[in-house]
Amino acid sequence: MDEQTASLIESHIAMQNVTVIGAGVIGISWIALFLARGLRVVVYDNAPNIEQRVISSIQAILPNIETVELPVSSLLKRLSFETDLARAVMSADVIQENGPDKINFKRKLWIEIERYAPQHALFLSSSSGIPTRIQASGMQRPGRLLIGHPFNPPHLIPLVEVVPHKRALPETTQRALSFYRMIGKQPILLRKEVPGFVANRLQAALMREALLLVKWDVVTVDELDEIVTRSLGLRWATGGPFVSFHMGGGPKGFTGFIDHFSWGMQLLWLQSKFSPVFFSTELKEKLLNQISASFGKKSLTELEADRDRCIIALQRTLDKVK
Amino acid sequence: MDEQTASLIESHIAMQNVTVIGAGVIGISWIALFLARGLRVVVYDNAPNIEQRVISSIQAILPNIETVELPVSSLLKRLSFETDLARAVMSADVIQENGPDKINFKRKLWIEIERYAPQHALFLSSSSGIPTRIQASGMQRPGRLLIGHPFNPPHLIPLVEVVPHKRALPETTQRALSFYRMIGKQPILLRKEVPGFVANRLQAALMREALLLVKWDVVTVDELDEIVTRSLGLRWATGGPFVSFHMGGGPKGFTGFIDHFSWGMQLLWLQSKFSPVFFSTELKEKLLNQISASFGKKSLTELEADRDRCIIALQRTLDKVK
Repeated sequence: MDEQTASLIESHIAMQNVTVIGAGVIGISWIALFLARGLRVVVYDNAPNIEQRVISSIQAILPNIETVELPVSSLLKRLSFETDLARAVMSADVIQENGPDKINFKRKLWIEIERYAPQHALFLSSSSGIPTRIQASGMQRPGRLLIGHPFNPPHLIPLVEVVPHKRALPETTQRALSFYRMIGKQPILLRKEVPGFVANRLQAALMREALLLVKWDVVTVDELDEIVTRSLGLRWATGGPFVSFHMGGGPKGFTGFIDHFSWGMQLLWLQSKFSPVFFSTELKEKLLNQISASFGKKSLTELEADRDRCIIALQRTLDKVK
Repeated sequence: MDEQTASLIESHIAMQNVTVIGAGVIGISWIALFLARGLRVVVYDNAPNIEQRVISSIQAILPNIETVELPVSSLLKRLSFETDLARAVMSADVIQENGPDKINFKRKLWIEIERYAPQHALFLSSSSGIPTRIQASGMQRPGRLLIGHPFNPPHLIPLVEVVPHKRALPETTQRALSFYRMIGKQPILLRKEVPGFVANRLQAALMREALLLVKWDVVTVDELDEIVTRSLGLRWATGGPFVSFHMGGGPKGFTGFIDHFSWGMQLLWLQSKFSPVFFSTELKEKLLNQISASFGKKSLTELEADRDRCIIALQRTLDKVK
């Protein structure tokens, strides 16, 4: 057995007990995935009826996780709930935090967790809003905390953005990457911590333009969505923007793209820069009216079931083809 | 037979002869698709070796078009080349133009085409850069010209943006939509003509942010591409940005999204607005270096073959699942 394999096995052994803090939409999806991958999960969330809500939600999710071969009832044996934070984290190898995005809440939480969690425990925050250098500011050993930011729904979308702050320990980062790979995710390590990280910044940039086009009455929300699924979505599910423009530039590749399209693109950026967009009362009303007239006619549960079915089928196809 | 069916059949009968002006990357893809869908195609392009280049390219494309059941040799019987514009358009029911994006070239071209094409012929421009109100400015009957803008590669990506200018005739618009539906595309009619139309504006907005993240060394081009294919691409292949945020907003749907995320999104827009990006010499060099170190190692032909295989597989899966 080589050193790498040995250390891989060692780290897997040390990552069997996960504590999930906060069981909202994201937390529940993590719980289902962790259970499906054979881990023991302790849930800490003091909301009313939490046990019932978590169990019924994961019973709906589990059949969608491809590699689950065990009956749901046997997976549930590895799930427990704790209302006391100290007891919730005392045996944790990994803590995945999904609490509210409030600075003081998170700071206090990590100070408490650090008092009770084992020395080796890995601290991961799903937060998309609060950088870990801020979350960790009261900790004795801030180097063990970093961002493990999933993309909704975490049990289906492969990406996890792993974002260390400047004081994060390299070994913590490596263990976080191993952990997510072990449970079948496809983590990407960001080289710097920037607000919104990468996927959400890209999404926000596209959304700004989408809102502008709806505001200008060029399209309605459902027409815009159809344009995206029929073109960009299909393109970007198979290759990202850079390789796509590399192929769209003719025989000279990306150089050809710059030659032909950079000028026009810069003009669009300029025009867009001087076109204000914000969530005004008027725009909100227009959006909500258009949404209720189109896909808003289906329930969220139906829409989510359609989405999950499609994502699972696409992911299986991509796994086969790639 | 009801009136709608009758008019549909009538319009199909009248759209069997297509003239393709300009056989570059986009033109060739259109030619392959038109032939595969049973149409007769006349190609007008006076570049050297055009016949040989077109035929070898479409022989590579045709096996990728799913519903082709005829041997390629029999499809090629419906393909011809004309070096004289008058003869190229004299029997056309539809003209799909893919010439260079130069205003004077296009203006002169349409004036000429109008002199020789049949009265009923539909004039469609693939241009993403020059609005038809400008292209049509010298025409006697500008109402018959509009944009039919495909997304690369047109033989695989379902979207066509149909963009009428203010003087375009409603019947021309309806016939353009019928034509594209007849050949299996999924056209979307835009309500207003804006520079870049919709898909390219959205793409440019995302690309601006992508360039910023590479410029800041948050990620490299291939890391950014992986983030997109592992998250946003998969999401947007199944549902556009509006329905996705409707589902991401919790039980209140899009209202919940506005409540939770609009503030943070507006902050990102603000930060991005004040972060200049343009294709500077330095940025170009960085991009090209990163590209040649990553996916640039494969040839464009290999990359395109990978892309096409993936898009075909995804499209088949989506057709089945949806």
